[in-house]
Amino acid sequence: MSDSATSLSLKASLAAWRSPLSRALHRNRSKPYSRYFQLATVHSDGRPANRTVVHRGFLPDTNALIFVTDQRSQKVQDNQSVSWAEVCWYFTETREQFRLAGRLLIIGRNYPETALTEARLTTWRNLSDATRQQFFWPHPGQPRGPESDFETKDIDPDQPPSTFCLGLINPDTVDHLELRGEPQNRTHYTRVDDQWQVSNLNP
Amino acid sequence: MSDSATSLSLKASLAAWRSPLSRALHRNRSKPYSRYFQLATVHSDGRPANRTVVHRGFLPDTNALIFVTDQRSQKVQDNQSVSWAEVCWYFTETREQFRLAGRLLIIGRNYPETALTEARLTTWRNLSDATRQQFFWPHPGQPRGPESDFETKDIDPDQPPSTFCLGLINPDTVDHLELRGEPQNRTHYTRVDDQWQVSNLNP
Repeated sequence: MSDSATSLSLKASLAAWRSPLSRALHRNRSKPYSRYFQLATVHSDGRPANRTVVHRGFLPDTNALIFVTDQRSQKVQDNQSVSWAEVCWYFTETREQFRLAGRLLIIGRNYPETALTEARLTTWRNLSDATRQQFFWPHPGQPRGPESDFETKDIDPDQPPSTFCLGLINPDTVDHLELRGEPQNRTHYTRVDDQWQVSNLNP
Repeated sequence: MSDSATSLSLKASLAAWRSPLSRALHRNRSKPYSRYFQLATVHSDGRPANRTVVHRGFLPDTNALIFVTDQRSQKVQDNQSVSWAEVCWYFTETREQFRLAGRLLIIGRNYPETALTEARLTTWRNLSDATRQQFFWPHPGQPRGPESDFETKDIDPDQPPSTFCLGLINPDTVDHLELRGEPQNRTHYTRVDDQWQVSNLNP
């Protein structure tokens, strides 16, 4: 990873909340939708936006969550004005919720940092072909195009299109609520100077 | 319902998106968590917030979604600055997502409209005793209190405490994405002068 300000601010040792989150992912692994979380951002007009995205793991040697998104989507547009996000991740089997808040980074083809454009390429290679197809569909949110616009294409697994972006969320606070506690347990993690402070809160 | 501006703006005939949403609730009814959705709001500092809440039905003769919340919670504080919300509601069995965006209204004990404070009372009566107990717990988000603060109390089902609030979300746009389509189907609903315009969009 290069020495630029961005990568320095991302690079970190394993945060204290990574272990309970890994445990939740493991214990809910029988449900494919356990890898889906809801991502809140803020539109340029100040209103909130909220949608489901798929967790694609963590950027190596950081605590940044990865998802993939389309350059043409509203959330990439939103990111140009306000680059904050909050993830809400509810696990149905173990009945626990993680809220992860922090800065949102969108990595497109021309992002000026090699380590991150390489992560973009690696993530593209790991996608299913069905997911890759979606980046060749017509403009999201525009009036529905004809079926022929959605036809399956031959896609190079080593060459992501310009529409393909990596989304990175680098949390600075994490709130973990366990509904099964008696009463519920709530643990709060705050990053202060690259250290994580942990506290138990009232639910 | 009274003639005030608020109730007039809430009162409405059944919106076009109510039928597909009812169908989703029905087809996913075997999973209790199908009644949970993620609610995004905006903090006073402009950052997004996102948490899971429980759907408590619709306010009669309106298209406003009901949830319950604590007067002391962050989302009630947020609501004093920006009163917009977006719900993201993902149904795991049928693999479809509804995004509902609109104004958020918090109805506390002293809200100046009888019809809405009556709805607050009705909702309180319909809660389980376990849920009612939570409104007598110590201040949410404060350092964890002793176990004795969480002891079960005798609660009057006709007398909600001042901490108990109704949250109402009155959507002005609804986006319905069906992942099972080939390709996915996306239907968009926009309210224009109390009419709902429906369009098919690219997913």
